[in-house]
Amino acid sequence: MRTTHMQDFPAIALACAVALATGCVPTAATTKMVTDQPAPVTIATEASKLLPSWDHDAKARKAIVSFVERVTKPGADFVPEPQRIAVFDNDGTLWAEQPMYFQAFFMFDRIRALAPRHPEWKHNEPFASVLKGDTQAALSGGDPAIIEMSMATLAGTTVEEYDRFVTDWVGTARHPKTGRLFTEMVYQPMLELLAYLRANGFKTFIVSGGGVEFMRSWTEKVYGIPPEQVIGSSIKTVFEMRGGKPTLVRLPEVGFVGDKAGKPVGIYQNIGRPPIIAFGNSDSDLQMLQFTCDGSRPRLCVYLRHTDAGREWAYDRQSFFGRLDKGLDEAAERGWTVVDMKSDWKTVFPAAD
Amino acid sequence: MRTTHMQDFPAIALACAVALATGCVPTAATTKMVTDQPAPVTIATEASKLLPSWDHDAKARKAIVSFVERVTKPGADFVPEPQRIAVFDNDGTLWAEQPMYFQAFFMFDRIRALAPRHPEWKHNEPFASVLKGDTQAALSGGDPAIIEMSMATLAGTTVEEYDRFVTDWVGTARHPKTGRLFTEMVYQPMLELLAYLRANGFKTFIVSGGGVEFMRSWTEKVYGIPPEQVIGSSIKTVFEMRGGKPTLVRLPEVGFVGDKAGKPVGIYQNIGRPPIIAFGNSDSDLQMLQFTCDGSRPRLCVYLRHTDAGREWAYDRQSFFGRLDKGLDEAAERGWTVVDMKSDWKTVFPAAD
Repeated sequence: MRTTHMQDFPAIALACAVALATGCVPTAATTKMVTDQPAPVTIATEASKLLPSWDHDAKARKAIVSFVERVTKPGADFVPEPQRIAVFDNDGTLWAEQPMYFQAFFMFDRIRALAPRHPEWKHNEPFASVLKGDTQAALSGGDPAIIEMSMATLAGTTVEEYDRFVTDWVGTARHPKTGRLFTEMVYQPMLELLAYLRANGFKTFIVSGGGVEFMRSWTEKVYGIPPEQVIGSSIKTVFEMRGGKPTLVRLPEVGFVGDKAGKPVGIYQNIGRPPIIAFGNSDSDLQMLQFTCDGSRPRLCVYLRHTDAGREWAYDRQSFFGRLDKGLDEAAERGWTVVDMKSDWKTVFPAAD
Repeated sequence: MRTTHMQDFPAIALACAVALATGCVPTAATTKMVTDQPAPVTIATEASKLLPSWDHDAKARKAIVSFVERVTKPGADFVPEPQRIAVFDNDGTLWAEQPMYFQAFFMFDRIRALAPRHPEWKHNEPFASVLKGDTQAALSGGDPAIIEMSMATLAGTTVEEYDRFVTDWVGTARHPKTGRLFTEMVYQPMLELLAYLRANGFKTFIVSGGGVEFMRSWTEKVYGIPPEQVIGSSIKTVFEMRGGKPTLVRLPEVGFVGDKAGKPVGIYQNIGRPPIIAFGNSDSDLQMLQFTCDGSRPRLCVYLRHTDAGREWAYDRQSFFGRLDKGLDEAAERGWTVVDMKSDWKTVFPAAD
């Protein structure tokens, strides 16, 4: 396990820029396929088979099941189906995010792929560091460096070209520590939770600081979340006719930044009503949880805490990627649910092929 | 019937600004209630009862039914359910838009309601014209005037306050010609079409130049389209803590403009995959139709032509609101389906209470 040590780095900027900058799209995922079609509610009622990768007696599991029963059964806290909106962060919540956001691996791979067309990159930072294999030095340039890398590698293409880059990368690139495809590093317990919620009439959304176009090519296949239920950062896109063909072109300009305070804004802009469940793992998700769990109506806010250095990673208050510091304090104050990965999950990743 | 005569006016700007500027939300609609939950497909197979408000022998009706059968039955043109995305313009396509966009009525009513707090408006244009009842003069100031009115009436509130203004207005305001609530001026044949598509596994979206927050409060009740499937223009919104309470505040700044070339961009940003059906009524929808019907895969593009001066309005190439000029030429060139309201619809509006 590697831990980054750049705590002074402006995490919000990195999160958003990396989000924009990188772009991975899995193809050959071996994870469980689930769809967003409502499944029979009976699935959810067999307590013994419910959320099988979760420790049966874990407080967090009990809190989740108890909340779902509370809002789906007739009673004072019943919530009609259309209002059963559940939002999930992606990096560190639905899939891993160490030693850096997976989308950053894609950005660096794109720089290496484009390098022959940019001989000047050998001498110019941050590209020179990337080409030397020193990604930490490349990232140390902060926002300007990251935005420069993002725009150099991701803008100027049509949306179809970008999608192809992502799809090709996701189908082949492997994580340096585990050797798995990145889409095989999603969390089995979370796949079960998504399916359980959908079986109970919830609509599941991703709300990520990551690039929306990077996620959309694979979220349906991997998580059962269709592209229209993925919210994330984006670069500006324009429509134009190119030789009589309608074309969407990605501009080298930051559009929406879907991190931190951008999360409730993204929810409002894209969903238009408040969620009743929010699930995150870092301070970047804090505003989303605050927004969701405001007021006295039934709401569930959950933080996943990475405590498992053996099966995954252990990090929280000091981590550069996915730092959980203020959020941990606020969870304790407000009584939000905290999942302890090491003790609450029987399995972390799905069985590989 | 009134027709506007400001053809030189920059329609795109007005459309977007009025969209931002106005904000109406119906409450007591008497229209048919439909939901976005998939209904049994059998509904769709009884040809005699299918789309009852459409003339049974109309070419447009036949083209629609034939397309839906083609993509839902096994065969070369079969489209899997998640890809059955249908997008609809709102003003002039799902509800009427004369003598001006309904959202503009809301804007003018807000100006009148706020006038006591702004004594200076009596002497300052465009507000002075509105207060004198000369809305045409108020609109003649073009973009700057409209944006000024929009921002003065709609920004600076929280999203809850704005929603309340819209809801109150929509529950009481009536159309000057018909005396109906504005939400009673939706098109019965279109309600049937939306339900028919959903019964066949389609997800129905609104893609409008109108204000997204203006539409969302009532589209679920009136059209069966949930807020998360409504795309439109918006003003910038920020998240902040106000006295410890998470709050979304509307800024006096234009955000996304969802008109003309903004429509395919909005589709890409919010849905993330191309629709297979697009339905509009004006040149503002042209890019959405071009985008949808590009390529050789099965696609259906439809224009509604307002030809019924008796039951609704008759307007096309010369109209200020909802002008259909280039679109009509392109529909002929490309063989898109054109609905003739007068001859193809047996009913226009739903029966009033």
